[in-house]
Amino acid sequence: MERIHNFSAGPAVLPREVLEQASDELMNWHGCGMSVMEMSHRGKEFGTILEAAEADLRTLLGIPANYRVLFLQGGATLQFAQVPMNLLAGDSADYIVTGDWSKKAYKEAQRFGAVHQAASTEADGFTSFPAGSDLKLNPDAAYLHLCSNETIRGVELFDFSALPKGVPLVADMSSHILSRPIDVSRFGLIYAGAQKNIGPAGVCLVVVREDLLGKVAAGTPTLLDYAVQAEQHSMLNTPPTFAIYMAGLVFKWLIRQGGLAAMEQVNIEKARMLYAMIDRSGFYHNPVQPACRSRMNVPFTLRDPKLDESFIEQARQHGILQIKGHKSVGGMRASIYNAMPLDGVQALMDFMDAFEQQHG
Amino acid sequence: MERIHNFSAGPAVLPREVLEQASDELMNWHGCGMSVMEMSHRGKEFGTILEAAEADLRTLLGIPANYRVLFLQGGATLQFAQVPMNLLAGDSADYIVTGDWSKKAYKEAQRFGAVHQAASTEADGFTSFPAGSDLKLNPDAAYLHLCSNETIRGVELFDFSALPKGVPLVADMSSHILSRPIDVSRFGLIYAGAQKNIGPAGVCLVVVREDLLGKVAAGTPTLLDYAVQAEQHSMLNTPPTFAIYMAGLVFKWLIRQGGLAAMEQVNIEKARMLYAMIDRSGFYHNPVQPACRSRMNVPFTLRDPKLDESFIEQARQHGILQIKGHKSVGGMRASIYNAMPLDGVQALMDFMDAFEQQHG
Repeated sequence: MERIHNFSAGPAVLPREVLEQASDELMNWHGCGMSVMEMSHRGKEFGTILEAAEADLRTLLGIPANYRVLFLQGGATLQFAQVPMNLLAGDSADYIVTGDWSKKAYKEAQRFGAVHQAASTEADGFTSFPAGSDLKLNPDAAYLHLCSNETIRGVELFDFSALPKGVPLVADMSSHILSRPIDVSRFGLIYAGAQKNIGPAGVCLVVVREDLLGKVAAGTPTLLDYAVQAEQHSMLNTPPTFAIYMAGLVFKWLIRQGGLAAMEQVNIEKARMLYAMIDRSGFYHNPVQPACRSRMNVPFTLRDPKLDESFIEQARQHGILQIKGHKSVGGMRASIYNAMPLDGVQALMDFMDAFEQQHG
Repeated sequence: MERIHNFSAGPAVLPREVLEQASDELMNWHGCGMSVMEMSHRGKEFGTILEAAEADLRTLLGIPANYRVLFLQGGATLQFAQVPMNLLAGDSADYIVTGDWSKKAYKEAQRFGAVHQAASTEADGFTSFPAGSDLKLNPDAAYLHLCSNETIRGVELFDFSALPKGVPLVADMSSHILSRPIDVSRFGLIYAGAQKNIGPAGVCLVVVREDLLGKVAAGTPTLLDYAVQAEQHSMLNTPPTFAIYMAGLVFKWLIRQGGLAAMEQVNIEKARMLYAMIDRSGFYHNPVQPACRSRMNVPFTLRDPKLDESFIEQARQHGILQIKGHKSVGGMRASIYNAMPLDGVQALMDFMDAFEQQHG
């Protein structure tokens, strides 16, 4: 069987070239006689890999010099705790709740101090991002937390300039980081689990402004202290070396594609095609407000949920995999991250068309 | 360049067959059209991988049914915090300090409650494991912590039956787990970072007796609660899927070798050969008490430390890599884990012989 069209929300499809390179050099990296998995993290070979990964990421995102880049473990879920443990410092924080992930972040943060809900779109079924004027903000908050792309409902924030200024912004960008250029300087801290647009599961990226470091709460495990990890260049202990190596290959692939501005153009086109088809169909439906529709995660329902199983099974026969929607939403979800090529989206649309003609 | 003899203390050499299989199926696992790195952790393909990894590990170690197996992140260093956060429950704990790693565990635990040093061999340069009669024990302690193989100084505990009974034993087995059969039922909790005898860095194994779960301290991140992870089968969030897959391949390789009793015989022979050579030489030296010498990590010094650099460089020319000792000890360290074949140890000994004849 050939490689298929993989619409998983994460762990997700990786660029074919990246997997080919990883396969080619798995036994023997650059002629050193070892796999990347077998290298001491303190040796010069892995040092080269880690330095290149950070440098390439800094180039791609335009990360200012006063931000530190950390490659950590535990995914975004551990960041839900690690952010308040490091940044609350006895103050309170505000949380914007726009979907399942920001709601989880908000709930977890309550274990570590005073946190407030600045807004919630739950009553509307999480189908939009609130306007800046709808946020109840505390000007003395330690930070304002948001999830800028909600993977499950497919809600994305595009205009960061509309976010309030003053209080440091903390953003969970797990499912859309690297999909377009962003202004990092608008944020105090950005975090992202790797397994959507960065690389394999097992490494979590944190980009943090230096002046926010050093306020960790008592009783925080040393490994979870951002300041210690920044001081130790993410090597207080053995980092997830192979996952970092894979992320580095993805960063180099992104640079070869022309960087994030070029990726954004492709991502706009992929999302435009797919949403346009859903909207002109009376058979498929996406409930998210058009201005907030995610370019990365496109959930849609079929007119008759009884057709879901048949859709999934026929999709599989057409080489379209991992298309089932999250259990809390039902229906389907097509995640179309950077590594999903345009012809993959076209293949999905061709199948959706045929399925609609058969059952519509 | 061919693959070399890799004596790294970790991340360390992996079995050649395991790397070959991983390379072969990297692009397309078992004909499913996806890499393991691209699979949803909730899908049936990865479910198969995770179940097989746990089942094979249970077979290898003979894990009783009342123990849970967790595949976590953060390495042993995060366990240094996670153990007291989960098990102290307001009581105190005792720590045996026999080297750099158990000392770190002891220091980290102090952040979370009352911990006491049951013994320390630091005054003797960490060259032995204390006798049971030398331990100052609190019979009401929540647990007694030890590191059963100290990677840096090369000190191993062989006879677990000499450890006190009554208080739950918690053991850091990172650098010798799976090197021989053990009686899991003697322990309350065993943990081990993967990057020595299990697989690549990025996954940490925890084997815990069920009755010790459910006592987590307030203010512990949800992801670090063993009971939650046990309930969720290590999938509260996305686990490090590829690292778990690699660990599973190593487990199957160990079963093919004849299991841990067979590995133990090879490991005894490798260590016997190398220590015998060091002892009969007047040129190389290992200070550890013979009964406590690690079968996994063999540190040794040269008669003249000024020869260290020359030794390392000439070793490299003979395809012998990552042999340098830890900076706190100096000299050399040959880590000879399961995946280091006997002929690798022989190649090292041949080189050491030649180097001694040249410089001795």
